[in-house]
Amino acid sequence: MNAIPDPTPNDPPATILALMDELPDLDWITDAGRVARLSQDFAWFSPVLDRQLKDKRADAVARPRTEDEIRALVGACARHRVPITIRGSGTGNYGQTTPLAGGVVLDMSGYNALRWVRPGVARAQAGIRLGELEKQARATGQELRCLPSTYRSATLGGLFGGGFGGVGSINYGPLAAPGNVLGLRAMTIEAEPQVVELRGAEAMRMHHLWGTNGLVLELEIGLAPAHPWLETLVTFDDFAPALAFADALARAPGLVKREVAFLASPVPDHLAQLAEYLPTGCHAVLSLVAEPGEEALRALVEAHGGAIGYRRDAAEVHKSNRTLMEFTWNHTTLHALKIDKSLTYLQSSFVPGRQVEQITQMEGLLGGEVLMHAEFLRNLDGLLTCSALQLVRFTTEARLDEIMQMHRDRGVRINNPHVFIVEDGKAGGPLPPEVIETKRRFDPHGLLNPGKLRDWPVRPAAASAPALPSAAPAEVAGAVA
Amino acid sequence: MNAIPDPTPNDPPATILALMDELPDLDWITDAGRVARLSQDFAWFSPVLDRQLKDKRADAVARPRTEDEIRALVGACARHRVPITIRGSGTGNYGQTTPLAGGVVLDMSGYNALRWVRPGVARAQAGIRLGELEKQARATGQELRCLPSTYRSATLGGLFGGGFGGVGSINYGPLAAPGNVLGLRAMTIEAEPQVVELRGAEAMRMHHLWGTNGLVLELEIGLAPAHPWLETLVTFDDFAPALAFADALARAPGLVKREVAFLASPVPDHLAQLAEYLPTGCHAVLSLVAEPGEEALRALVEAHGGAIGYRRDAAEVHKSNRTLMEFTWNHTTLHALKIDKSLTYLQSSFVPGRQVEQITQMEGLLGGEVLMHAEFLRNLDGLLTCSALQLVRFTTEARLDEIMQMHRDRGVRINNPHVFIVEDGKAGGPLPPEVIETKRRFDPHGLLNPGKLRDWPVRPAAASAPALPSAAPAEVAGAVA
Repeated sequence: MNAIPDPTPNDPPATILALMDELPDLDWITDAGRVARLSQDFAWFSPVLDRQLKDKRADAVARPRTEDEIRALVGACARHRVPITIRGSGTGNYGQTTPLAGGVVLDMSGYNALRWVRPGVARAQAGIRLGELEKQARATGQELRCLPSTYRSATLGGLFGGGFGGVGSINYGPLAAPGNVLGLRAMTIEAEPQVVELRGAEAMRMHHLWGTNGLVLELEIGLAPAHPWLETLVTFDDFAPALAFADALARAPGLVKREVAFLASPVPDHLAQLAEYLPTGCHAVLSLVAEPGEEALRALVEAHGGAIGYRRDAAEVHKSNRTLMEFTWNHTTLHALKIDKSLTYLQSSFVPGRQVEQITQMEGLLGGEVLMHAEFLRNLDGLLTCSALQLVRFTTEARLDEIMQMHRDRGVRINNPHVFIVEDGKAGGPLPPEVIETKRRFDPHGLLNPGKLRDWPVRPAAASAPALPSAAPAEVAGAVA
Repeated sequence: MNAIPDPTPNDPPATILALMDELPDLDWITDAGRVARLSQDFAWFSPVLDRQLKDKRADAVARPRTEDEIRALVGACARHRVPITIRGSGTGNYGQTTPLAGGVVLDMSGYNALRWVRPGVARAQAGIRLGELEKQARATGQELRCLPSTYRSATLGGLFGGGFGGVGSINYGPLAAPGNVLGLRAMTIEAEPQVVELRGAEAMRMHHLWGTNGLVLELEIGLAPAHPWLETLVTFDDFAPALAFADALARAPGLVKREVAFLASPVPDHLAQLAEYLPTGCHAVLSLVAEPGEEALRALVEAHGGAIGYRRDAAEVHKSNRTLMEFTWNHTTLHALKIDKSLTYLQSSFVPGRQVEQITQMEGLLGGEVLMHAEFLRNLDGLLTCSALQLVRFTTEARLDEIMQMHRDRGVRINNPHVFIVEDGKAGGPLPPEVIETKRRFDPHGLLNPGKLRDWPVRPAAASAPALPSAAPAEVAGAVA
């Protein structure tokens, strides 16, 4: 999506050439343009990250297709002390797939077999695309519990490594809620890689660590029963009734739903592909409600003075292969940024039960500069609230920081999407000891994208400064050179 | 269950004999013992209601099997001004099936055909047993959204007329939440009965009115996807960790469940059939969790220091035809009253989010006299909370009132189960105009169990006094004579 500057052609460094010699049957990518592209994700949503990360790239990309190939690559990298950056499809937003210290991008997209689908559970290799997994689950009357808007290309491993939840989190909460991920199979980054099955809470120690403390080979996840989803856009003239409708729909326990998003004006004006259904200047609520709930949904729309501007039943959605899910979560951001390059975004979460009040307050304070897009979900504790992915008319990094601080000052949590160090983002500070212990166990040489974890290895002096690649540990930097 | 006093044999009054002459093909029951039994429900849970209602009975019971038979009976009753009391299986608790002014009990249990089961929805005649409906839904991979513990015998119409929710309400809220009941077909009580389909909110105007403002023939209800339910009893030595576990399990969004009940000591000691699984003096949490959640459930049990004393997987439950669902909600009450005749019960609901605090407070105040049994559920607004069906060591009616007032004084809502007038119970006061309007439309002669609705017909003087049968309007009383 982003225009990657055409890199000057460069040959891989000697260590990489040695790796390639050692593993000639592996699918290697060294073409400078492809390597540059495969070193990037959607971090360009953030002008800050774009500036910091756009020139970072791997020395080469390897795309193994079997566990044996992965083991051989990992073992060789460990022996040669070559950094490894794990990649799914690059749909993340925080440079999860961008090597800060060069080395090899381990592209997992070729390791993509479905292992099995059972009642309530599926297991697949990490590189499987979520669209494919959803399709396989659907064949058994089931579906994924949390589906990011990027599901067509995003991988299961990528979602686990850098995702939060998505469509479906209104029922099942974030991916981190116990029961959503049952277990995983991971490989250690060592000369003789070990493969281990981790279950439950132990598995979750690798979640949202951006692939920095273990190589996830396979994931076992909870499934949901599939429903025939009715997709609608309900439009309103005013902010307040639109938000009230979204909140009421999200709460209604008898209305089965998969997704409720509130798009305050002028966000809908940025969804060019839906323009004919969204009157200019409208506020819109996008939802997926199980078809038998349509009468109750219409009654709720009427009670709030809305109008159904778009309606597709499950059969129509299936036939058209076009779904409103691809206009939710960070796809909304993507559609908007396509129209207006000056936009960036926030990630925030509201106090459960106070979401309507806080969203209204922030709109009053920052409306015009910050454009409200809120997604309803249950939090880890099962409480209904919103995560917002507000669009921001970007001016300066200082103003962006100020805007985020204005949210924090009013009790709105910011999961800063303008940082690329694990501890600075959603983790919100030093990592828990068990996560560090997992890092020690699974990546003893610190080869997984060095620089991405501030706490590893612990550097006495610079521990609180951003760990830019230039500050990467000498051992690792040496290995890259 | 209750020992009905053997009534003195009595012949039906002349009007009833005229009805029977007019409708000789109808299934009439006039045997005094059977009529007495069919005039009662589980109101004997309350010593107050038992005193007030135990001698009330119909003059005859009719059990029609077709809509034509129902129409003929209703038309004849309307012409003769004979009161009609609608009965399902008599599993209610408020004398819903007890005629206050004699007349005919219209036993709907013979009108019990399943109309159809579709994805997410089923439609059946009101007299269908919920166990049968659940079985038919299960055959399509679905199940009922709200199942009372009495589902084996309880009817769909009875649940709608006097039920609140039950097993499943932890997901779907009470039956009253939009989307749970989609519509119904009702008959007016007139010489020429009309049959009308009501949808959505209009249908709900007949809900929990104890069959006093319309005769429901058929109901269309939302279904849930079926899961393989793992049934467990988790036991604890102490009150606080047991309650904390129940609350955490109820909230956990990634743990799919159908039921969570908290049974504080000494409630479990009253469940004789489960005695081998419940150490004397224990606190217990009864739950149904979808099987794939077992690992996460066990982790939660361990974190709270509980022990799994009983575990049956879905196959075992199916094979044994024995389910813990029959130890929840008011079945817990029934099991306890079988052991200890001095007990009665309360119905209360806690402030969402404050359920643990309020339950703990009430236990501190009344423990020993009031035995805590709380059921987790979502309220109409989708918020997680508890309804409690506390057992009470009954002494006097005055003390029972005092106990209820102690709850109200602390913000715990009481849905008084010791009253038999609609407005005094859950309705909590005068009925909304649209409910009164429904009564006018569907029962213009006021024949549906006269005395049960205080607001109908409006009596200028006695409007605030309990409408005991003796205070029933002259017109109706005359018709009974």
